[in-house]
Amino acid sequence: MRITVLVGGVGGARFLLGVRALPDVEVTAVVNVGDDIWLHGLRICPDLDTCMYTLGGGIDTERGWGRSGETWAVRDELAAYGADPDWFGLGDRDLATHLLRTHLLRSGMEAAAVTAELARRLGLRARVIPMTEHRVRTKVTTPKGRLDLQEYFVRERHALPVSAVEIAGAEEARPAPGVAEVLREADKVIIGPSNPAISIEPILAVIGDLIDPARTMAVTPIVAGAALKGPTVEMLQGLGREPTPTGIARGYRPYATTFVLDHKDADQAAAIHALGYRVVLLDTVMAGPAGRARLAEELALV
Amino acid sequence: MRITVLVGGVGGARFLLGVRALPDVEVTAVVNVGDDIWLHGLRICPDLDTCMYTLGGGIDTERGWGRSGETWAVRDELAAYGADPDWFGLGDRDLATHLLRTHLLRSGMEAAAVTAELARRLGLRARVIPMTEHRVRTKVTTPKGRLDLQEYFVRERHALPVSAVEIAGAEEARPAPGVAEVLREADKVIIGPSNPAISIEPILAVIGDLIDPARTMAVTPIVAGAALKGPTVEMLQGLGREPTPTGIARGYRPYATTFVLDHKDADQAAAIHALGYRVVLLDTVMAGPAGRARLAEELALV
Repeated sequence: MRITVLVGGVGGARFLLGVRALPDVEVTAVVNVGDDIWLHGLRICPDLDTCMYTLGGGIDTERGWGRSGETWAVRDELAAYGADPDWFGLGDRDLATHLLRTHLLRSGMEAAAVTAELARRLGLRARVIPMTEHRVRTKVTTPKGRLDLQEYFVRERHALPVSAVEIAGAEEARPAPGVAEVLREADKVIIGPSNPAISIEPILAVIGDLIDPARTMAVTPIVAGAALKGPTVEMLQGLGREPTPTGIARGYRPYATTFVLDHKDADQAAAIHALGYRVVLLDTVMAGPAGRARLAEELALV
Repeated sequence: MRITVLVGGVGGARFLLGVRALPDVEVTAVVNVGDDIWLHGLRICPDLDTCMYTLGGGIDTERGWGRSGETWAVRDELAAYGADPDWFGLGDRDLATHLLRTHLLRSGMEAAAVTAELARRLGLRARVIPMTEHRVRTKVTTPKGRLDLQEYFVRERHALPVSAVEIAGAEEARPAPGVAEVLREADKVIIGPSNPAISIEPILAVIGDLIDPARTMAVTPIVAGAALKGPTVEMLQGLGREPTPTGIARGYRPYATTFVLDHKDADQAAAIHALGYRVVLLDTVMAGPAGRARLAEELALV
């Protein structure tokens, strides 16, 4: 079976792990690159890296991002030089990825090919594709102004209220090579349990037209009023959107016809069904590898 | 007093330290960049870095190059990725310099300004100028072919016989901004005790026309048949050149009128004098800071 998953960072990457654990399944991740940044002349793709490290086994499982056994000599030395910005978590092992990616890009290789090459070198048993090779920048409006995603997320530790999200460049951006194919050939497309506003919608803004809703299911990122990971609830509230599975289902309706809801939110099943969805109730909170594998297995049967 | 010194890497950098220790002296180093390389998309200037770290106090004094307290996480990770080449000593702290330099260069700053900026951030009390902002590549002919300097020096650990040296690009290269001025305004110009063939001659090939021999003295890099540092003697022999102070003095004759010879080689004073030099006999082997300071003091009096 071929499954294509749309994902952002930490939460989505862990979800991917579960899907990959399924027998006889070919997994492809189409990954958000709306929060990519250039830092110190290096191209950094936080969501791609989190997905690749998670699938490749090199992730720091406690933090959920960056490399295990990480050291920070380069970051400290750049700070000693007074090089701005100094707030990004630029680990030494991680930096090897950024260096290699940047070098390959500057040598003329395109972003999807570079990603495939990094994935190959990391020994990933899954395909990882950036949603686009064009420059898309997710920007959030906060009391401190209009910030790039990493500024908001890392520098400000996502502690600011967000009143608007803009996905700059999405209109001009085209899907990366391979995206149309993996969406067309997938038996199932899954919208992963990532933050809708800053992880999934940037992907949909670029590749949404290619999605066949009949084969697509969305997994709720909110369970019992809380996000699996990160500031999803607070952000949706700030945007004046309903921070519930029903609210999220409403937004995904053009793209999906199946919605995966957690048992804890069974009281919303009727409302989501009324939106036109087939609703599937599962235990979506993936505690550890066993939980992730079980969820994936149940999703594959849906 | 203004002293401008032409130097290469480790030996020259240590010499610079002594000159800088002189009271009431403004020191400028014009540094070889013929062995600069691009690695993993980073611009690396080994001689500039050695001079800056030595003057800035961050050098690994035992190795003579690279940063003290160095770690190697990025290098190891790049090797795990299978990224070539893997033979260069790319330390983590050192890498911050390469990153910052490369980033500033790519942002449009010229090489001499970038060097000045790095020197400023490192708190150097000396001016450091690359000999040129153009691409000059010192290449050596060996039994393994025509190699870039770093390939010969680092990858092959300077263990190959060298039958020819070529300074590619020197004819088209112009001196970096500032070089003409510091040579014109210097009370003394000193050709440091670096390897003539691969450190000094690349500099002279680009800026030689600007040197006033009447104000220029050369310090011997060979004492009692051995180089202060590195494979100078073996290299000169391989090139069919005389690996002695006299042989070196002959080569520098168009550029200098004073030659600083070590007491141990007093028997060559007459031959060097016969070439048209004023010969100064000093203890040139600079054992430790005291030795360096003494040598510099004596040179300043010459």
